[in-house]
Amino acid sequence: MSEKIILSVNAGSSSVKISVYTATKSSSPQQLAELQVAGLTAPPPKLTYSRGGKSIIKAKEVEGEISSQDDAFSLLLDTLINDHELSHIKSKDDIAIVTHRIVHGGDFNKQVIISQDTYSHIEELNDLAPLHNAKSLEIVQSVIKKLPNAVNVAIFDSQFHATLPAHVRTYPIDQTIAVKNKLRKYGFHGISYAFIVRSVAGFLRKPVEQTSIIALHLGSGASACAIRDGRSWDTSMGLTPLAGLPGATRSGSVDPSLVFHYASDVGRLSPGSTKELHISRAEEILNKEAGWKSLTGTTNFGEIAAGDGEEMKLAFDLVVDRISAFVGSYYVSLQGKVDALVFAGGIGERSEKLRRAVVEQCACLGFEIDEETNGRELKDTVVEVGKEGAKHRVLVCQTDEQFEMARACAEDDQLW
Amino acid sequence: MSEKIILSVNAGSSSVKISVYTATKSSSPQQLAELQVAGLTAPPPKLTYSRGGKSIIKAKEVEGEISSQDDAFSLLLDTLINDHELSHIKSKDDIAIVTHRIVHGGDFNKQVIISQDTYSHIEELNDLAPLHNAKSLEIVQSVIKKLPNAVNVAIFDSQFHATLPAHVRTYPIDQTIAVKNKLRKYGFHGISYAFIVRSVAGFLRKPVEQTSIIALHLGSGASACAIRDGRSWDTSMGLTPLAGLPGATRSGSVDPSLVFHYASDVGRLSPGSTKELHISRAEEILNKEAGWKSLTGTTNFGEIAAGDGEEMKLAFDLVVDRISAFVGSYYVSLQGKVDALVFAGGIGERSEKLRRAVVEQCACLGFEIDEETNGRELKDTVVEVGKEGAKHRVLVCQTDEQFEMARACAEDDQLW
Repeated sequence: MSEKIILSVNAGSSSVKISVYTATKSSSPQQLAELQVAGLTAPPPKLTYSRGGKSIIKAKEVEGEISSQDDAFSLLLDTLINDHELSHIKSKDDIAIVTHRIVHGGDFNKQVIISQDTYSHIEELNDLAPLHNAKSLEIVQSVIKKLPNAVNVAIFDSQFHATLPAHVRTYPIDQTIAVKNKLRKYGFHGISYAFIVRSVAGFLRKPVEQTSIIALHLGSGASACAIRDGRSWDTSMGLTPLAGLPGATRSGSVDPSLVFHYASDVGRLSPGSTKELHISRAEEILNKEAGWKSLTGTTNFGEIAAGDGEEMKLAFDLVVDRISAFVGSYYVSLQGKVDALVFAGGIGERSEKLRRAVVEQCACLGFEIDEETNGRELKDTVVEVGKEGAKHRVLVCQTDEQFEMARACAEDDQLW
Repeated sequence: MSEKIILSVNAGSSSVKISVYTATKSSSPQQLAELQVAGLTAPPPKLTYSRGGKSIIKAKEVEGEISSQDDAFSLLLDTLINDHELSHIKSKDDIAIVTHRIVHGGDFNKQVIISQDTYSHIEELNDLAPLHNAKSLEIVQSVIKKLPNAVNVAIFDSQFHATLPAHVRTYPIDQTIAVKNKLRKYGFHGISYAFIVRSVAGFLRKPVEQTSIIALHLGSGASACAIRDGRSWDTSMGLTPLAGLPGATRSGSVDPSLVFHYASDVGRLSPGSTKELHISRAEEILNKEAGWKSLTGTTNFGEIAAGDGEEMKLAFDLVVDRISAFVGSYYVSLQGKVDALVFAGGIGERSEKLRRAVVEQCACLGFEIDEETNGRELKDTVVEVGKEGAKHRVLVCQTDEQFEMARACAEDDQLW
């Protein structure tokens, strides 16, 4: 069976990450290498590269002009091609598939091969998610230019939530305008949730389509998802990633009136807008100038969890409260049929203190933490941290969006 | 002990309601009469009057010019004074206390006697709640003018929620701006929640300060409240009544970005703004042009519950979903220490179908409906509708905001 090289590309606002896999059709992709350029908006940018699990380059300051996503991709590609010990990639042409994480997929309910047609469709979605999609499209352009023979695949963070039932995804607003402007709950972090539910099902030895969990993807962007029989039933993010849980610089759900009392003229375009992309000052405030950083001065949740000042405690308690509220509401929406509460994402995987606080708050639902396993280093993809004999299990899942993207490509008949 | 006449005044956008009580200090007020003018914004306005539980005037079309709150109050006052069978009120001077329901009380944590000082303080709150406070202040003016010897007392819908803990009431936004602009969760329907928790405590024969409930005030405006040991611990409305549950024309919590994708220039002032009161187009859309009316065409929830069209079903399921989510989250925030789930408000008291649907959705928490008692007409203030032997009780409370306002006055040492 022919083997193909797959690059999973994840472009953030100030970084580009690539994981390199080899896969055959329907097989589980094998990672060959991973590399990233970080700090594009806080120069000098730094390059990190590992191959076969071994660190080759570690946060090395990059010389020369690297400021755009395009520059970053050139550097990453050169790094791969010039590494003679990476025998799978000798030239550009060895890269068969490049898969791109796109935050907002609108009505797309599965990944698509990027053609001129689908590209323009994805471009239109920028209106719904100017803060989130634009960087990904920059890198798609860059890859098309540099790897003309590769197939580009767009995978959307929203596609996992295409199964949200109508009464969950609908906003109670004028439905003519809702349809025209595509206003509904979409939900995000879906690539991660797809990875989580499959991994947890494997761990529990259940078919995915019989696995129901409350999953928490907690990172600098944070969300919760009620997964019923393997499919998204509800999730905390909405039309955009702003709704739901607070994040590092994101308010999460607040009174929709709030921003109009925050500053005058919040409806005006932000100075950060471009001719193509319109961002209101309000969206900028709530996405970039709020969240736990606005309470504590730091985006680093680890510092907040470890801190003991009043502000740190307030931010920690607030985050625990908001997370626990979603656990309670999803417990009800799943009617108590919950195989596990699952923590994932940078914070969910690293902060044993946050996990303990959430599980203790939710003790009345039958979740209990095991202090000992909760304190251990995570060795496997899925680890049990709940108490034996408790009514419901508590797990941690080391989520891997790039792997999930490669896996989706390995499973996609169109690509083989 | 001297007896005083208390008028409880509740001014809505198109109606003025008055309940008349007689009370002695610290006694339970006795209702003498109730009357209202409705339809101020949909003329001709109609007058309804009952005394001692008997209907005297029933939705009689009013002749002459009655368009303002001031006109309405004159008419109501004349009706009372000219009713010779109402022996307690022979002249204006027999009215000792007039208590006004004011929606937004800002930092007020209890009722206040309206003086020049407190009046200007309350007036300043109009900025926070232009859609809600303005009408109440019109009627305060009118009463001061017409009843110069009465003591006016402002009771705030937010005051019951003064006990919200910091991590619940804080929004994760810039705290300098939050403090300066008074941006935090306030919560509303508090006069009703005060009535509910006292009545339920009485029904359960528990001290109020040991009574913990999840209370749902469901009317054309709807909210939920987690009451812990008699005090508000969390509630679904926020800085304004817009947050939380959907209402008849109110969206409830939606992605805070949504309105910027709904129409252009939502940050502009609405044509409904006045020189003194600024309302953004966005706030008008989300408060007046959303909610279940936007899904179904009717504000009447009874019609929605009875309807079987697709739109009706969607709206019903959506409302049940949003209410149940709050029940789940408050169950967790009260750590399962819940004496009862309590339905109140026009819809909570009237729609047995809604109660059944919510309780069934929340069965996993230990709530169970009793079909028979749930279907009965409500005879008492508090009625049990949960199944005997269930883990938690389910109650209906016929809430009475006007009585609660009079009761608060009877208890207030300053007034006696």
